[in-house]
Amino acid sequence: MIKNFEFFKEKIIDSEKKKIVLVGSEDREALISLKKAEKIGIADAILVGNKEITKKYCEELQINFEIIDSKTPESAVEIGVKLVNSGKGNILMKGLIKTSILLKAVLNKDWGLRKNKLLSHICAMEIPGIDRLLFVADGGMVIKPNLSEKIEIIKNSVEFLNDLGYANPNVAVISAVEVVNDAIESTIDAAILSKMNQRGQIKNCTIDGPLGIDNAINEKAAEIKKIKSKVAGKADLLIVPDINSGNFLGKSAIYLSKGTIAGVILGSRAPIVLTSRADEEKSKLNSIALAVYSTLKK
Amino acid sequence: MIKNFEFFKEKIIDSEKKKIVLVGSEDREALISLKKAEKIGIADAILVGNKEITKKYCEELQINFEIIDSKTPESAVEIGVKLVNSGKGNILMKGLIKTSILLKAVLNKDWGLRKNKLLSHICAMEIPGIDRLLFVADGGMVIKPNLSEKIEIIKNSVEFLNDLGYANPNVAVISAVEVVNDAIESTIDAAILSKMNQRGQIKNCTIDGPLGIDNAINEKAAEIKKIKSKVAGKADLLIVPDINSGNFLGKSAIYLSKGTIAGVILGSRAPIVLTSRADEEKSKLNSIALAVYSTLKK
Repeated sequence: MIKNFEFFKEKIIDSEKKKIVLVGSEDREALISLKKAEKIGIADAILVGNKEITKKYCEELQINFEIIDSKTPESAVEIGVKLVNSGKGNILMKGLIKTSILLKAVLNKDWGLRKNKLLSHICAMEIPGIDRLLFVADGGMVIKPNLSEKIEIIKNSVEFLNDLGYANPNVAVISAVEVVNDAIESTIDAAILSKMNQRGQIKNCTIDGPLGIDNAINEKAAEIKKIKSKVAGKADLLIVPDINSGNFLGKSAIYLSKGTIAGVILGSRAPIVLTSRADEEKSKLNSIALAVYSTLKK
Repeated sequence: MIKNFEFFKEKIIDSEKKKIVLVGSEDREALISLKKAEKIGIADAILVGNKEITKKYCEELQINFEIIDSKTPESAVEIGVKLVNSGKGNILMKGLIKTSILLKAVLNKDWGLRKNKLLSHICAMEIPGIDRLLFVADGGMVIKPNLSEKIEIIKNSVEFLNDLGYANPNVAVISAVEVVNDAIESTIDAAILSKMNQRGQIKNCTIDGPLGIDNAINEKAAEIKKIKSKVAGKADLLIVPDINSGNFLGKSAIYLSKGTIAGVILGSRAPIVLTSRADEEKSKLNSIALAVYSTLKK
């Protein structure tokens, strides 16, 4: 159990600096978050993109990262991905570049970063009044995962949580109800995924579902419904049915619960920080911290 | 725009008392919420169910409502529905009775309460720091609505909001993204529903979508994304893609945002209060207030 994003930042400060490779570096807002990350001592950066614009922003913002010039978005992502592949960079970050171009390069068979079967998104939420970080997958990448894709999403996420120090995270497969209902597909998948975990087909975590959000994260709610489960009330990771439901959770954490979130793409050899323009600066910084911490040797 | 649930309670107190018909009245928790509703002056009740057990609870709780004996759940719902149909009762409330039995009676062709094409659920959320109530449909009844069902859900919900005093509510059809993406069905439906509203096919509201939760409810978030819309940032009602995503929103309002919610079934001649055992007492009382207020002549 990790309480908040501060935990990562504190741990990172005492470790060797990791290099974030920002591709499409002519992105003022991304540069601001990297400046902040460097200032609090959690990351260094290499910038790949239009050198002229990038340099102008760097001077204005008084930052001094290495800049590699690139004439096209395609060459920027190729340079960036290869930097991470060679070990000169440790984490890839999306700047002013289309997500599709970035992901195509990540998935390149010759020089890409693909490691697992599927790329997936994980969101971490820090919410006032909740005693621990809650992770949600996949609210950002796979639109409507089928059962096999849910297995890959869980594998990616559990591997990441293991890297963050969760030896055996509690995984709740959530749905609108906590009983199996053959009219609600997510409850069927939840039953199957639980059994696969029990049989050792999905390892290094404890999976239970279907669970409602209430009884997944709140022990009192689980007691009222008399749910016997090692996960109920103690979930670290919520597996959602689709991108809409996961996205709504992450956004309501910010806009309804006054929380902060972080998001990272998993399944590649290095985590990818992929924040959107509308994300708050705090979110961007948290995402960097989460990605960096996951790559540290513990 | 209505700020909070208190608004309804205050208005109801000055009006003629409405009768809640509790079917399956041998339900201690439901009786407690009705006692509270009577105490604060927002409702009176008729109890239909096992007279012996109901009477015992009423004596214990010191409440004094009319009790109608019924030997079976089927007869209890029939009596209850007919009471509402005849005007002796104004609102139906589910007690210790299966939802399926209750709904079957509501939909009975000879003596039921069906009014619109579809029954649907609406949830109202009061969240600290949000300046107004937010309504969500459908996170409780229709599992995976297709386009026609979404139209009916909107019609039911808008009719209800009109009854609550919203002359022309802002309806956001929400999705994970605010652009039309043919891989995400909810964005396609959102575009169609917006156009139908613009052409006058869905009336008494302003519909826009796809919108993200952030830019639906938060004006600043809408500005950042440069969304031109009468609804963005000012949504009263959020139309969700399916029961999971709506259910997660309602539950996160309670368990993540420390809010309170209310839920009512719509599409019938009278609103139906259908709370679950795990619902907080506040939720039950809010649901009663919402249902009662919607039936008042304004």
